[in-house]
Amino acid sequence: MPIEVKPYKFEPVIFELRYNRMADEIMGFIINILSNKKAVEKIHIIPNWVEAINERVVKQLMIKSIHGTLAIEGNPSTEKEIEKILSEEDLRKIKERKDIETYNIKQVYDYINNFKKPEPNKPLLITEELIRELHRIITDRTFENGNVPGQYRNFEVKVGDEQHGGIYRPPHILEDIKMLMKGLVEWLNSEEVMKEYPVIRAILAHYYLELIHPFGDGNGRAGRALESLILHDFGFKYGSSFALWIYYYSNYDIYFSLFSKARKENKGEQTEFIIFALSVLNNALENVFEEIVNITDKLLFKDYLSYLAKNRKINSRQYLISEMILDKNIMSAEELNNYPLLNTLYKKRTPRTFQRDMKALLETHQLIIKITKEEKIYYQANIKGLISKYG
Amino acid sequence: MPIEVKPYKFEPVIFELRYNRMADEIMGFIINILSNKKAVEKIHIIPNWVEAINERVVKQLMIKSIHGTLAIEGNPSTEKEIEKILSEEDLRKIKERKDIETYNIKQVYDYINNFKKPEPNKPLLITEELIRELHRIITDRTFENGNVPGQYRNFEVKVGDEQHGGIYRPPHILEDIKMLMKGLVEWLNSEEVMKEYPVIRAILAHYYLELIHPFGDGNGRAGRALESLILHDFGFKYGSSFALWIYYYSNYDIYFSLFSKARKENKGEQTEFIIFALSVLNNALENVFEEIVNITDKLLFKDYLSYLAKNRKINSRQYLISEMILDKNIMSAEELNNYPLLNTLYKKRTPRTFQRDMKALLETHQLIIKITKEEKIYYQANIKGLISKYG
Repeated sequence: MPIEVKPYKFEPVIFELRYNRMADEIMGFIINILSNKKAVEKIHIIPNWVEAINERVVKQLMIKSIHGTLAIEGNPSTEKEIEKILSEEDLRKIKERKDIETYNIKQVYDYINNFKKPEPNKPLLITEELIRELHRIITDRTFENGNVPGQYRNFEVKVGDEQHGGIYRPPHILEDIKMLMKGLVEWLNSEEVMKEYPVIRAILAHYYLELIHPFGDGNGRAGRALESLILHDFGFKYGSSFALWIYYYSNYDIYFSLFSKARKENKGEQTEFIIFALSVLNNALENVFEEIVNITDKLLFKDYLSYLAKNRKINSRQYLISEMILDKNIMSAEELNNYPLLNTLYKKRTPRTFQRDMKALLETHQLIIKITKEEKIYYQANIKGLISKYG
Repeated sequence: MPIEVKPYKFEPVIFELRYNRMADEIMGFIINILSNKKAVEKIHIIPNWVEAINERVVKQLMIKSIHGTLAIEGNPSTEKEIEKILSEEDLRKIKERKDIETYNIKQVYDYINNFKKPEPNKPLLITEELIRELHRIITDRTFENGNVPGQYRNFEVKVGDEQHGGIYRPPHILEDIKMLMKGLVEWLNSEEVMKEYPVIRAILAHYYLELIHPFGDGNGRAGRALESLILHDFGFKYGSSFALWIYYYSNYDIYFSLFSKARKENKGEQTEFIIFALSVLNNALENVFEEIVNITDKLLFKDYLSYLAKNRKINSRQYLISEMILDKNIMSAEELNNYPLLNTLYKKRTPRTFQRDMKALLETHQLIIKITKEEKIYYQANIKGLISKYG
């Protein structure tokens, strides 16, 4: 059931599911999102892969996600600067506002990533305490606009600009904000919303939080964090519940315009905003999963080399050459010829041996492919050719 | 648009999509099916796995599927007998009707598995020739009930029995069958059906073929083959497009009763039959995928052992013991102690060495787990403990 709240000094707000669930795009995106989610759950890994996945995929995605959610709000930090802050151990060195924000977002990222429900087997209930805790972490030590970390505001704020559908003046007295937040949380935990797809619940939690705009600062980040928390709880892996921050940022204009449009022109009808948010989420997931598959393919290939070497189908020189080319992604013939490892390997051999080894890697085993570009020769591991889907 | 056909000596038949597409179960199953399909597409394999997957999963599933579709029609062949026929090279030895049927189903299985559309990038069009070719293969050399392989009948048949909703008398003159088959094929290729989920198209192709029952014998097998062909074309891997034959067989009573019910009580309303068929398909897929994941996990584990040995994290004795236990699935301590390989490995060693090796496998590396059952000790590879989903 929809919940209607009538604030003292703000127009009535109805919390409701008001979108066309039969819209082909919505069904299509939901199917894609759930399929991708399930697909990634089926990717099994072995312990020797964990480090590579963490370092080459999860950490890089984390940096990109953090960059996205900060950049939306005008924080100028580059990905490089963010990476530096994340590894800074001396907190006293984190002084500038942009660095504090970065640090805080990493904290909220970790908070969500490690979040455990009080009752693991029951659905996640959203509470005001939880939302305020997210906000507290995000705006800790930022001292902005009279904002108090974790507390609702009791003053007026303006949201948006003319380019994105005009200025919006959300409710501005504390009583109204309290009343609306109570209504929002009640509705988010209602039977109607709980039996929706969690992705819809996550999107609408974000949507209504921006509508109420309960805090003095950091409402956008808090809303996106809440959305990620719900997705994380639903089981999105590898940090994919945060990856949509990247795509909100790269679709900045649409993101803000559709908020305004849903509120004003559509008078609360959510279809367009939901389709946009689903497309963002779908995009984020597809990209995360592609990266995971790329890295697991590479690791599988490495294990395959191990298998070939162990079963003496390739010799140890061939094994080391293949592994080196794999690790480097691409290697010119020149670079290979001058590589120190190569000299060590073939010190007591004739050039013919090297040629024979390479020929077998290229032709018999097809582990390596040769690419000619601008009359230069390059080598690459033949991952696509060897790691394949079955049948 | 629905297509209505008015036969001379049979009631009018309307080919139409007549099911409640909003039924929660239908949407739920379709999402599950598409998710599972996508999940299996993401399982990547390396060349040294192909043989194990073929032998231990795909072939076993093929035998079970063939057994299912034959057993539904009362063919008494066991899985063992079927396996024997499949490897029989001397066709002259295949004489008994049940063996000929087995041989034929394997032929139609291969036909579907190798089926290439005339135009690979266009949707699969169903033609009468195609349906008749499936039937021709299925009933070749069976000489049953005046049935002519690949030809429509021109005589009356009775279908079903009292236990499954009563006897059904399908159209019985050739002109009517021709007219109905023409209508069916036209409808299956119509825009309306082509933009449906292919799983729905596959189910309804099967459903209407049974309604027309165009052949003297083998209609059930032909209908299920047509269904599998559409699913195969849609991209179901590892023979999963055939696995539903297993589940039709194990749900035999419901399968036939729901045909009758849709036809009689529901007057052509398909929801119940579609939900049943989707549940069968979903079941089939989930089981296929679980088997694939089980085998790929085992292969991943093997590659992990290879990695550990290559990097000298375990010694070659430990490697061989682990691999042997993995291959045997489970091994009692007694069996292990008396195993010839073990004597060879530890010939020049003290018993302490063996104990130390085992202790490290069990405790440090946790590659092996110890199970005590009825006071006997067993060893098993710790696949679940080591191969995991990320995070």
